[in-house]
Amino acid sequence: MTPAEEMERLAARARDAARAMSRTTAEAKTRALTGLADLLAAREEDVLAANRKDLDAARAAGLDAPRLDRLTLTPAVMAEMRAACLHVARLPDPVGATESQWQRPNGLLVGRMRVPLGVIAMIYEARPNVTIDAAILCIKAGNAVILRGGSEALHSNTALAGLLQEALADAGLPPQAAQLVGITDHAAVTALCKLDQYIDVIIPRGGEGLVRAVTEAATMPVLKHFKGVCHAFIDADADLDQALDIVFNAKVQRPGVCNALECLLVHRDAAARFLPLAAAKLGEAGVEFRACPASLPLLGPNAVPQRPEDLGQEFHALVLAVRVVDDLDAALDHIARYGSNHTEIICTRDYGRAMRFLREADASMVAVNASSRFNDGGQLGLGAEIGISTSKLHAYGPMGVQELTTTKFVVLGQGQVRQ
Amino acid sequence: MTPAEEMERLAARARDAARAMSRTTAEAKTRALTGLADLLAAREEDVLAANRKDLDAARAAGLDAPRLDRLTLTPAVMAEMRAACLHVARLPDPVGATESQWQRPNGLLVGRMRVPLGVIAMIYEARPNVTIDAAILCIKAGNAVILRGGSEALHSNTALAGLLQEALADAGLPPQAAQLVGITDHAAVTALCKLDQYIDVIIPRGGEGLVRAVTEAATMPVLKHFKGVCHAFIDADADLDQALDIVFNAKVQRPGVCNALECLLVHRDAAARFLPLAAAKLGEAGVEFRACPASLPLLGPNAVPQRPEDLGQEFHALVLAVRVVDDLDAALDHIARYGSNHTEIICTRDYGRAMRFLREADASMVAVNASSRFNDGGQLGLGAEIGISTSKLHAYGPMGVQELTTTKFVVLGQGQVRQ
Repeated sequence: MTPAEEMERLAARARDAARAMSRTTAEAKTRALTGLADLLAAREEDVLAANRKDLDAARAAGLDAPRLDRLTLTPAVMAEMRAACLHVARLPDPVGATESQWQRPNGLLVGRMRVPLGVIAMIYEARPNVTIDAAILCIKAGNAVILRGGSEALHSNTALAGLLQEALADAGLPPQAAQLVGITDHAAVTALCKLDQYIDVIIPRGGEGLVRAVTEAATMPVLKHFKGVCHAFIDADADLDQALDIVFNAKVQRPGVCNALECLLVHRDAAARFLPLAAAKLGEAGVEFRACPASLPLLGPNAVPQRPEDLGQEFHALVLAVRVVDDLDAALDHIARYGSNHTEIICTRDYGRAMRFLREADASMVAVNASSRFNDGGQLGLGAEIGISTSKLHAYGPMGVQELTTTKFVVLGQGQVRQ
Repeated sequence: MTPAEEMERLAARARDAARAMSRTTAEAKTRALTGLADLLAAREEDVLAANRKDLDAARAAGLDAPRLDRLTLTPAVMAEMRAACLHVARLPDPVGATESQWQRPNGLLVGRMRVPLGVIAMIYEARPNVTIDAAILCIKAGNAVILRGGSEALHSNTALAGLLQEALADAGLPPQAAQLVGITDHAAVTALCKLDQYIDVIIPRGGEGLVRAVTEAATMPVLKHFKGVCHAFIDADADLDQALDIVFNAKVQRPGVCNALECLLVHRDAAARFLPLAAAKLGEAGVEFRACPASLPLLGPNAVPQRPEDLGQEFHALVLAVRVVDDLDAALDHIARYGSNHTEIICTRDYGRAMRFLREADASMVAVNASSRFNDGGQLGLGAEIGISTSKLHAYGPMGVQELTTTKFVVLGQGQVRQ
C-alpha cells in the first residue's frame, strides 16, 4: 500500500467514526476524557519510556536544545496533560445547542444548531503534549481527529494515541475517532491535504514553513496562523507607569510565543518621557532595541539602529523594534502595513482614541490598556484553545471547543412548500 | 504589465479601499446602495446597450440557450437589481456590533466585535446581475470586492461596475471598493488565487469545474459549494398528501437549482401507497424516475431502471432517483454516502425520528415536513444571500451579509498584565 492509499483508508475510517461521534452524548465524551486522565496516570511509566526512546534518537541525531525541550515529557508535563483532560471534560458541551430560532411568515421555524465539524486533521511538530491537547478538544466537540505529529516524537505519540484509543473504546466510542499517522514520510501529509472528501478542516501548528506548505497543498479549509507581529501604541497621554508594566509583560514574560510584543510605537509627545523608562526596565531584562532615528538617542546602550527588516519581524527573542510616530493615524498606518492580524494594543487615557483603535486596528485581538499576552483561549475565557487563527474565516483569534464546531440550519415545518 | 502584475496592483488597491470601508458609517454605505439604485434607473439604456454587444458576440460565438439566457439583461432584470439595492440598503448593518461581552476574573472586559472580512474576490460566470447582487452584499458588510465575471459578459459588467464606482464615489467611499477585473485571460484568475496577502476570501460561483479549479489554486480561504444532491426521506407514517406536495415542490418548481430534489428515499412500509401517487403527480409534470428494483413496478411508465451513477447525481433536470429503504437508519446511511451536505428533508409524523433526522443528517439545512427549496438566504430570513456554502468552515448554508463579516476579540483593560 502506498502512503496515499494508506492515508485514504485512514481518512475513510475517520469519516465513519465522525458520524458515530456526532451522534454520541455529552456523557460518553466526558467519560472518554476522564478515562484518558486515569490512563495517563496508570501508564505514565510506559509513556515516559517511549519518550526516552525518542529523546535518545533525537540527541543522537543532534536535535537543537529548544526542539529537544519541546519533545521532552516529564511527570510535570504528564500532570498538565491529565489536568487538561479533566478541565476539558468539565467544559460545557457545545453540540446540539440551537442558539437562535425564528419564525418565518409562512410559519416555518428556522434555527441554527451547533454540530461537529466532522473530521479534523492536525499537522504539528514534535511536541507530544499537543497530541493530547489537540485530540481532547476535537473529541469534546464531537469530531474525529487525525494526528500527524513530527516524526521525532513517533514513539511518544504512538504511546499516547494508544491511550486515546483505549479511553474512547472504554467509553463506548469508536477508537478511530483519534488516529495517529504512523508514516513519517512527508508523502503522508501531502496525501492528507488532498482528501477533502473525508477531511473537513486541516490545522497546521508549527513554524511558518510548515503552515505555508500545508496551506498551499490543502484542498480543504485550513485554520492557521503564520506569525504574530504584535504592536503596542503608547499614546501621548498614556499612563506611563501602567504602559511600562504592559510593555514589559508583553515583551519579557515569554518572548518566544506568538502573542509577545515585537514592535513598540510611541507617540512623539510621549517618547522623551517614556522611552528612557522602557530602556531602563526592559534593558535590565536583557532586551535589545532596534530603534528608529528618533528613538535611538532615548534608548541607551541596548539600542542599535533599526534596519528595514526589523519592522514586521517576529523576533522570538528579547528584541524589540521601536518607532516614534506622529499620532494615532501614523500608528494605525504602521500596523496596517506591518501587522500580522494577530494582536494589537494601545495604552491611552483618551476615550475617543481608544475607541478608534479598537475599531480600526485589524487583528484577531485588539486591546486597550492590557498586555498582548492575553490573546490566548484560556486567558480570554474560552476554556482552552487548539491554536490562534489569524485568517478571518470561521475563527479569528483563539480557537476553543466552539470553534471546532459549526452550525447547520434546522427547519421545522408543517408541510410548507415554496411559492 | 503581465496579468499577474496587474492583479497584484488591483488587489493592493482593494486592500487600501477595504481599510477605508471598515472605518465608514452605515449611513455612507446606505447612501452608496440607494445611489446605485438611482444610477441603475438613470443609465438603464447604457447598460442594456452594453449588454446587447455581449449578446451579439455571444450569439455569433454560438453560446447555448441557457447561457444566453443568463447573460441577458432586460428592463425586468434591471428592476430586480434596483430592488435588491434598496432591499440590502434597508437590512441592519452588521459591522461594529459586539454580540457578547464578559468579564474575566482579573477585571478584563472581553467581547467579540463584528468586523468586515476585508477583501473578497468573486469569481463567477457570465451572469451580469451577479455583478450587482454580489457587490452590494460585500459593500453592505464593509468589504472591498474584486469582481471577475465570465468574459462573455465583459461589456455588461464594465457598464455595471462603472455605476458601482460612481455610486461609491458619490457617497464619499473609495471607488476601488468595487473593482472589475477587465482581463479575460484565465491567468488573471490564477494570479488572484495566490494573492493571499491582499485577499481574505475568494468565492467561486458557478459550475463544479470552476469551483474545483479555484479551490485547488487558491491559497486563501474559499467559500463554495460544489453541488446540491438533496434527498427526501418519506417515513412509514408520513402524511402522504403533505409529503406529495413537498416532493412535487422540491423536484418540479425549479429543477435546475441546487436546492432541488434529486433522490427520493421511501420507507418500505410507505412505498406501495406513496409511489403510485408520486408517479401520477410528478409524472404528469414530466418527471422521469430512475428507480431501484423495489420501486420500479410502482412508478409507472415514466420509470427506468436505476444505474449506479444515478445515486449521488445532481440532475439539473426533471429526473428523480428513487430508492426504497428499510428504515430511518438505512435512509441516513444512504445520505451519508451519497449526500453533498446541501439539503436533506424528512416527511414524518413521528417525533423521535424527526429529531434523529435533524441531528444526524449532515447537511447545511435539514428540514422536517418542508420543501428542500427553502434552503435559500431569503427564504430562511437572512435577508439576501451571496451563495450557499456546503463546506463547514465559517458558513454552512446560505451566506448573507453577516457571513461576509467576522468577529475580532476586543479587550478593555485597566492595566492588566498576564501572571
